[in-house]
Amino acid sequence: MKEVVGGPPPSQGFRDFAHAVKEAIDRELPRWLAPHVAKAKELGGTAFAVADAIRTFTTRGGKRIRPVLMAAACEAYGGPRAFDILPALLSVELLQGYLLIHDDWMDEDEVRRGGPTVHVALRAQFGSARAGEIGAVLAGDLAMGYSLTALLETRTTPDRLAEATRQLARMQVEVVAGQVLDVYHDGNVETVHDLKTTSYTVRGPLLLGASLAGASASQKAELEAFAQPLGLAFQLRDDLLGTFGDPQKTGKSAAGDLQQGKRTALVHELLAADRTGEDRALVERVLGVKDAPAADVARALERLATARPRVEARLSALLDESHAHLGRMDLRAEARNILAGAISALGERER
Amino acid sequence: MKEVVGGPPPSQGFRDFAHAVKEAIDRELPRWLAPHVAKAKELGGTAFAVADAIRTFTTRGGKRIRPVLMAAACEAYGGPRAFDILPALLSVELLQGYLLIHDDWMDEDEVRRGGPTVHVALRAQFGSARAGEIGAVLAGDLAMGYSLTALLETRTTPDRLAEATRQLARMQVEVVAGQVLDVYHDGNVETVHDLKTTSYTVRGPLLLGASLAGASASQKAELEAFAQPLGLAFQLRDDLLGTFGDPQKTGKSAAGDLQQGKRTALVHELLAADRTGEDRALVERVLGVKDAPAADVARALERLATARPRVEARLSALLDESHAHLGRMDLRAEARNILAGAISALGERER
Repeated sequence: MKEVVGGPPPSQGFRDFAHAVKEAIDRELPRWLAPHVAKAKELGGTAFAVADAIRTFTTRGGKRIRPVLMAAACEAYGGPRAFDILPALLSVELLQGYLLIHDDWMDEDEVRRGGPTVHVALRAQFGSARAGEIGAVLAGDLAMGYSLTALLETRTTPDRLAEATRQLARMQVEVVAGQVLDVYHDGNVETVHDLKTTSYTVRGPLLLGASLAGASASQKAELEAFAQPLGLAFQLRDDLLGTFGDPQKTGKSAAGDLQQGKRTALVHELLAADRTGEDRALVERVLGVKDAPAADVARALERLATARPRVEARLSALLDESHAHLGRMDLRAEARNILAGAISALGERER
Repeated sequence: MKEVVGGPPPSQGFRDFAHAVKEAIDRELPRWLAPHVAKAKELGGTAFAVADAIRTFTTRGGKRIRPVLMAAACEAYGGPRAFDILPALLSVELLQGYLLIHDDWMDEDEVRRGGPTVHVALRAQFGSARAGEIGAVLAGDLAMGYSLTALLETRTTPDRLAEATRQLARMQVEVVAGQVLDVYHDGNVETVHDLKTTSYTVRGPLLLGASLAGASASQKAELEAFAQPLGLAFQLRDDLLGTFGDPQKTGKSAAGDLQQGKRTALVHELLAADRTGEDRALVERVLGVKDAPAADVARALERLATARPRVEARLSALLDESHAHLGRMDLRAEARNILAGAISALGERER
């Protein structure tokens, strides 16, 4: 690979790279799943229904951020190109499918990516709410099995594969622990974000990609330090988009997070600055209350807007922190450009 | 290792071996889990509750059949002794924990191994049925993450580790597919037994153990042929014990399977021979009906007893089939003794 200095701005280069990876995932994921769904069909109609629900759910869009970051880290450390580690890239998408399928049932979310969530789809298929929720838990379990299966099909050396699998195991343990804290409203908010988002959205995919490139322990430690603030920034951006984003772009309703009861960074900032208790009372009337009065929702959004600059400042500081880590990392210029592009793309995204 | 001809009968030798492995698991599993539970405790009380529920559940007895078979196969193919592959042995127990935790919730079982199932324990802890079932699904997910983590800590070569992990992934995919068929009463009964029992109780552990010994593809194919009838025999033995076993030894109530609604091999044999439809009507009044009249239950047990000789004959034929496979396998005498002992122990067990 030649050293690239100058050229297009990193974010543009990264966007092209990300677009190519996303296209590959959108094309290869249904192809990978097809024989597995066919095998389930041979076993019985119910096994087919469950496997097909995984296929429908995981192939219905999604930003494919995780495989993009994995491929970026793999290339950054001189490993194979995205097209040569496709099963590993699919594996994080299948892991994401598993986690979302279980989470959606826990959070009672009915719609995801413009279609029914899996427990809703299987409820219709199997004829009862109970059969639907059992089906969703099994679909999640099966998707986790597929994730591991796909990862282990990656063509690489056994030691890199074992190390990559360790990263997958770490991601699973961390994100499930994060979900426990989140679902029961427990734990420190930045710890929850770190476990529930950074772990499997940023840190895990980057470390998995670096593992497939044979990165050294010290390179992985550097990458982890770089990933930490970036993952948190990703979550803050998600929180900003979930409350103030353009519904046309995000595919989520305005004030969606508020009505879903998410204790976002905005909510935390607002309550932290609440001297009179009025904001807390307002938030309690609106947060997670599906039939909250429209006037209360509007007022809550106005109040959350007062916290917005502080969240934006924190986001910006986190991105600076990632840049500072990147500056200290021993990387070729091209690799540095890829990772700088990732910072811009994750921190500035509008969907 | 020296060739052993003569000596104690294989089943006695195997029982001693199994006892030593079981003791090691009973001692090492809590030791392995301790730092993971401690880490969860640092995160928050709810994460501790979930991790601790895994610990309580997986360390409360259990026959430890799977690690015994894994260690037996590993030694049979000249691999390391049980004490040198402890994390791998723990990994199948944790996989088993994960599967039972999810299954018990799906089957609405309240008691397992003489204590509350995990959704029941967490229902009491978190104060609602819904919070308990969410907790149980998360506990299962976390136990699966622990299983993978433990396996990847096994000290062996990276290629053996990658192959062992492939076996774990195959076990997970198969057993979840089997659970789908079982929970919705779908699929061919021997297919369900193969996927739900043989896969992760016999075939998977044996192949995982052989992988850790670096067994060749043809050795693993032979072992798989040996495992197939043995796994089914294990299931038939389980079915016989669940209906006619000594409650003192099995720890399950007499007629337990009947009242839990299990469509055992006995039920299938009875219905297959039913010319008048009377047995079918009787089974429908009793199977899975918790408050069925005692007279009907007694009558159903009498009728199931008529199917018992046919199930026992099938079991015996399956054990002969495993012996025949064993006879054709190219093994040292000591290895052959270990596997012959496994046939006796699994086929003749009384608990």
